[in-house]
Amino acid sequence: MAYHHRLRVRYGETDQMGVVHHANYLLYMEEARTMWMAELGCPYGELEQRGIGLPVRRTEMRYRSAARYEDELEVEVAIGRLGGASVDFVYTIRRVADGEVCVTGHVDLACVELTAHPRKPRMLPTELREMLERGQG
Amino acid sequence: MAYHHRLRVRYGETDQMGVVHHANYLLYMEEARTMWMAELGCPYGELEQRGIGLPVRRTEMRYRSAARYEDELEVEVAIGRLGGASVDFVYTIRRVADGEVCVTGHVDLACVELTAHPRKPRMLPTELREMLERGQG
Amino acid sequence: MAYHHRLRVRYGETDQMGVVHHANYLLYMEEARTMWMAELGCPYGELEQRGIGLPVRRTEMRYRSAARYEDELEVEVAIGRLGGASVDFVYTIRRVADGEVCVTGHVDLACVELTAHPRKPRMLPTELREMLERGQG
Amino acid sequence: MAYHHRLRVRYGETDQMGVVHHANYLLYMEEARTMWMAELGCPYGELEQRGIGLPVRRTEMRYRSAARYEDELEVEVAIGRLGGASVDFVYTIRRVADGEVCVTGHVDLACVELTAHPRKPRMLPTELREMLERGQG
Repeated sequence: MAYHHRLRVRYGETDQMGVVHHANYLLYMEEARTMWMAELGCPYGELEQRGIGLPVRRTEMRYRSAARYEDELEVEVAIGRLGGASVDFVYTIRRVADGEVCVTGHVDLACVELTAHPRKPRMLPTELREMLERGQG
Repeated sequence: MAYHHRLRVRYGETDQMGVVHHANYLLYMEEARTMWMAELGCPYGELEQRGIGLPVRRTEMRYRSAARYEDELEVEVAIGRLGGASVDFVYTIRRVADGEVCVTGHVDLACVELTAHPRKPRMLPTELREMLERGQG
Repeated sequence: MAYHHRLRVRYGETDQMGVVHHANYLLYMEEARTMWMAELGCPYGELEQRGIGLPVRRTEMRYRSAARYEDELEVEVAIGRLGGASVDFVYTIRRVADGEVCVTGHVDLACVELTAHPRKPRMLPTELREMLERGQG
Repeated sequence: MAYHHRLRVRYGETDQMGVVHHANYLLYMEEARTMWMAELGCPYGELEQRGIGLPVRRTEMRYRSAARYEDELEVEVAIGRLGGASVDFVYTIRRVADGEVCVTGHVDLACVELTAHPRKPRMLPTELREMLERGQG
């Protein structure tokens, strides 16, 4: 199962090559994953308020076709590996107009106690795990 | 007359004070104004393809109440002064949940020939001016 | 008296118009002001650790000449008005190569208790005020 | 052989977790690699003026220890694989104060004709290849 999130490229997200700057796709992926979590009933902001964070521990992106200003993009996000204290999200970003794949990649998150210094790994809370398992479908 | 554009605050748009970093409101304003232009029938990207640009020449923002991660914001944009070779957009950004005003401001644009080096001021093209007058309406 | 901070434009800070995106000058101003505070003996990070914040309450920028990728810029920052619970910083950003002024502007900060919810205005701490008065020259 | 570039974390580069937002390391890597190219005698801006671009085709980052506001970071960049029409840069980003590794990763670039539509792969120009071989040395 996968979640689909649409967005439109902002002018300030382009660079002088006339395309989306490569770092910005990480923001698109983040937006898609947190919209999904909110829709599944587990907004990320609430997790943090409970002292639980999901910092990024690894990212990988392959750039296939450049997205441009005003392009509408569809970010497809699915859950890859679901560990005891981590979860990997897998992405395909397509241009809506022609279905062309712009970027594929994944973003792997750890689960941590935000209140510990330094932050300490912890198991995914049960309801988050169940939510992610539903997402994994 | 004014245009209303909604967006949701991204995690990467916050800073360590736990609120939207003050520079990002300029991106929200830019998104609202270009969505409006597209809706009025004059997408900014097409203007640039015709060699006409609208670079920013002045911005001013007053920060009234901090927006936070996951807040839905409504950007209200209206046309202020419409000059021969310039146009000023006026903004109010509100949090949708409680109607609180987060930021007010304006962004003034010049009209230039992009193909001249250095870029040269030029009159707003007629159809853009008419479109903006409809928006001002 | 004024402080001068140099930086070089990053590729990712440009947009498809081939120049620095207008929002990024706020980051340059922020970098210059916090470098100055650190040099004067009052790093902003330490202030926050003591529960004192200086959120931005107003910004204004005039764009005079576009900065480009790889340009070395000099950010001149001075202290404008120094209020009981606020301080205004005044900026001129020049291209080093030819001395051309790219942007002028100011950024006004309030002083707040970060630990209060909602954040509460407070007087500038004495040693910060003295440091700023030295900066004001 | 490797190049070392130092920078200081900006406030606006943090997020509400109190650390550098994960996307920003790509900007640090980009800054280090282009500073290196300029120092080796081949500024990236000049390449683009000659119609040659080096768009990113793959990135990978592992986040090991979070960098924070005001941290001085050292970006170590080396050349990995040098192909006929591509070059891979390998990175280690350390906090200067304690030598702790914050992020490791690599960014792979393709070489393209910017003037072709769509952009067309091309061999690395000879003097760029020689410069990169010196860097690899």
